[in-house]
Amino acid sequence: MIKEGDTVHLRGRKSSFFIILERGKELSTHLGSIKHDDIIGKNFGETVFTHKGEPFILIRPTLYELIMFGIKRYTQIIYPKDSAYITLKLGLTDGMKVLESGIGSGALTIVMANAVKPKGKIYVYEKEEKFLKNALNNLKLAKLDYVVQPHLKDLSEEIEEKDFDAAFIDVREPWLYLENVKNVLKPGSMIGFLVPTTNQVSEVLKELKKLDFIDLEVEEILLRQYKPVPDRLRPEDRMVAHTGYLIFARKGN
Amino acid sequence: MIKEGDTVHLRGRKSSFFIILERGKELSTHLGSIKHDDIIGKNFGETVFTHKGEPFILIRPTLYELIMFGIKRYTQIIYPKDSAYITLKLGLTDGMKVLESGIGSGALTIVMANAVKPKGKIYVYEKEEKFLKNALNNLKLAKLDYVVQPHLKDLSEEIEEKDFDAAFIDVREPWLYLENVKNVLKPGSMIGFLVPTTNQVSEVLKELKKLDFIDLEVEEILLRQYKPVPDRLRPEDRMVAHTGYLIFARKGN
Amino acid sequence: MIKEGDTVHLRGRKSSFFIILERGKELSTHLGSIKHDDIIGKNFGETVFTHKGEPFILIRPTLYELIMFGIKRYTQIIYPKDSAYITLKLGLTDGMKVLESGIGSGALTIVMANAVKPKGKIYVYEKEEKFLKNALNNLKLAKLDYVVQPHLKDLSEEIEEKDFDAAFIDVREPWLYLENVKNVLKPGSMIGFLVPTTNQVSEVLKELKKLDFIDLEVEEILLRQYKPVPDRLRPEDRMVAHTGYLIFARKGN
Amino acid sequence: MIKEGDTVHLRGRKSSFFIILERGKELSTHLGSIKHDDIIGKNFGETVFTHKGEPFILIRPTLYELIMFGIKRYTQIIYPKDSAYITLKLGLTDGMKVLESGIGSGALTIVMANAVKPKGKIYVYEKEEKFLKNALNNLKLAKLDYVVQPHLKDLSEEIEEKDFDAAFIDVREPWLYLENVKNVLKPGSMIGFLVPTTNQVSEVLKELKKLDFIDLEVEEILLRQYKPVPDRLRPEDRMVAHTGYLIFARKGN
Repeated sequence: MIKEGDTVHLRGRKSSFFIILERGKELSTHLGSIKHDDIIGKNFGETVFTHKGEPFILIRPTLYELIMFGIKRYTQIIYPKDSAYITLKLGLTDGMKVLESGIGSGALTIVMANAVKPKGKIYVYEKEEKFLKNALNNLKLAKLDYVVQPHLKDLSEEIEEKDFDAAFIDVREPWLYLENVKNVLKPGSMIGFLVPTTNQVSEVLKELKKLDFIDLEVEEILLRQYKPVPDRLRPEDRMVAHTGYLIFARKGN
Repeated sequence: MIKEGDTVHLRGRKSSFFIILERGKELSTHLGSIKHDDIIGKNFGETVFTHKGEPFILIRPTLYELIMFGIKRYTQIIYPKDSAYITLKLGLTDGMKVLESGIGSGALTIVMANAVKPKGKIYVYEKEEKFLKNALNNLKLAKLDYVVQPHLKDLSEEIEEKDFDAAFIDVREPWLYLENVKNVLKPGSMIGFLVPTTNQVSEVLKELKKLDFIDLEVEEILLRQYKPVPDRLRPEDRMVAHTGYLIFARKGN
Repeated sequence: MIKEGDTVHLRGRKSSFFIILERGKELSTHLGSIKHDDIIGKNFGETVFTHKGEPFILIRPTLYELIMFGIKRYTQIIYPKDSAYITLKLGLTDGMKVLESGIGSGALTIVMANAVKPKGKIYVYEKEEKFLKNALNNLKLAKLDYVVQPHLKDLSEEIEEKDFDAAFIDVREPWLYLENVKNVLKPGSMIGFLVPTTNQVSEVLKELKKLDFIDLEVEEILLRQYKPVPDRLRPEDRMVAHTGYLIFARKGN
Repeated sequence: MIKEGDTVHLRGRKSSFFIILERGKELSTHLGSIKHDDIIGKNFGETVFTHKGEPFILIRPTLYELIMFGIKRYTQIIYPKDSAYITLKLGLTDGMKVLESGIGSGALTIVMANAVKPKGKIYVYEKEEKFLKNALNNLKLAKLDYVVQPHLKDLSEEIEEKDFDAAFIDVREPWLYLENVKNVLKPGSMIGFLVPTTNQVSEVLKELKKLDFIDLEVEEILLRQYKPVPDRLRPEDRMVAHTGYLIFARKGN
């Protein structure tokens, strides 16, 4: 049963809305309005109607939808094609303790938090206050803010926790902080990076080798979409050609 | 602390082993042997030595590693690049009730089970007994077998549960079963498919349209690996060019 | 030495112009004007100046530039990544007799004509008069119109020539004309197709098999561009994801 | 009519042979033998039979086939997907004077020679005698050796010609020779490079900028092949993931 405070995806015939339910509020659309109170108490999967009779299905929003359509973006986000793979590659699962820096708009944080919840935690180091604040709001929309422990600073300063099970670094010059990060990682743990340029890949690899990380891997993921027309099946005309290079390694000892 | 029954990844300088710990047993390698009893009681991250002095780090294996190197394959598996994305796209999270058919070698089931655990469940319909048996063993290696409810039959027969939150279909002719599946899916739920040929994509799309599914998408994911050499950074010479086309849709009403 | 009637590429510091030189004419740009007569008699590689002193290098335009920036497009063109490969795959060289249908905007015709000139010929069957007219103008810009023999009709009618060395078919339903085309191809000759959808690929392959063509191949070519910045080397954000599927076969007997 | 000295592709039902015809010689195959004299005087497209009755079509070999199946490889070759595009991008056409270094196995040289023949010339600088000798033999097979002027040295020494219309450089450290090459290129001319690593791309770009080249471009071309089965159309399982990065620029002044 849908409760006050839940995030709901209203999927209409032509448009969609993501709202957090609040008693007394109303959603206004160009197809008519719906009272939040008329949604509270219903079940996901049921249909509600605007005062003009337009139907909307009540959907429990997938993380994918929240990331792509729901969150507020202050930065380039890490896309689901990458964040899903990163999370599996780092081996994130319930109870793990993960270091992340920076947070960007929280798109990756949402996916990682979902993987380690309810007992694990993502410790975020982010020096830009406005990014951190926005990302935490986005995590609230996903009801995952309780999984995150934020720090308003970057990795050049002391890292306050230790014995991390995994780390993901998405900053401009990751090599500057790698020794610091290595010191707080458990042996055998995975670390990941996303960097946009080949020069950064080379710099990260150099530092990883210098610090005796093992199992170095560099990968990129390309997502190609097709027009979903059965009799004229073909790829879309254009695609995203690059989001970033993914680098993975393991702390060897 | 590592206990009997745990799955451990022993990461050596040149080779790796995945074992389930059993008192009294011994792992024999060409670099010497290690008693399981000498591992039980240690912590992940510690190092053990063979009787010849060769070191192995004790690693909590990531799901990625289990899928790529640990499980026994009776079929072509769904690779992490695809299974991670599928799981995020279907919106799988703790507590969800998911329909899967068939199980193959369980590579996708492991990732989906990890996402809906501990309260959710994956209901598997698989008519090949040897596939089912092998896949359940693979799930045991990942300690996720408790999340799976298997049925030794295919989707042409009665589906015993209803009100699924999501479904993933990986069989030769998914369109034959789509009406059955639709009847047990909650409105607004996501469904996914993996098929290797364009002809199958067209057939699935036709049936999805006929049954009024909405939000149809067809995608493929390409993973390109690089040689991790800082001064001579370049892609590997060859890559996997195709695993399958991914199709996603939502039950509209 | 540059003569009247030559096509010249004026490459400025920020902009480019393609003109056919004509005595008495003048090129007006926002950086000043240049008289055609001041270009005639110069050599490629020399620099001319507008009346405002802005320099332009006189370049013999490459076919690549003419196709991408010079020709007038009435249709989607076949891009250089595809047309260069098609021409090499069909084995086009001086003296060959080639069948093409339709002509589109002539972008492929230019590349094929350049390969078979001066003694070979491209026999074009195109039923849309406005396409044919525009394409022939584009061939004139490339000074290759003399290599083309146009027919204002499609391949369902009688093909007036025979003993072709190669053929390239770029129409909506190539399978309808394939028997006609086979009859005018020399044994052992190559035939190529470009079609945008997978359904068309299947139809063409079926007909090729029915008509005993051999050496069937289906390919697609992807071109990825990078930002040419030495210290921040990375792919462009977006790319063309699809132009068409290329199909090749050989008349076996 | 086929003459002594011609290169012929004998395309059988299951196998192919490339031979240069010589009176008195005989081709032995596991399906029987054929006398060269029985081929001389026939036309391309006709069929000959071995003494055991096995048919072979006489085909004028395409450059594509010669490059992929006919030439002897001492080095990694530049593949048709790249060489065709390079030739179009450099704007090569009849009569042009082109600088190439090194020659490798001559796979690119064949395509460029075909484009500038009969009046143009490819001036090759190659310091490895065995590569040069093998490549010239390969050019002979393509009947294009007359288009090539070889020099047994590299670009660090004096370049003996000047006023080139285009240049293509495929050596390990192209930046060392770039100033030399610039001095012999006509203003406005195109230059191209193929390098396998991102580090080399950065170095080449740096030097191109330093020497005031304009219109810098970095590109890569991916070729994906499909199984040509109409009812089960799908990409091949694996593909070539990388041959090299292509760099193009224009001498500005």
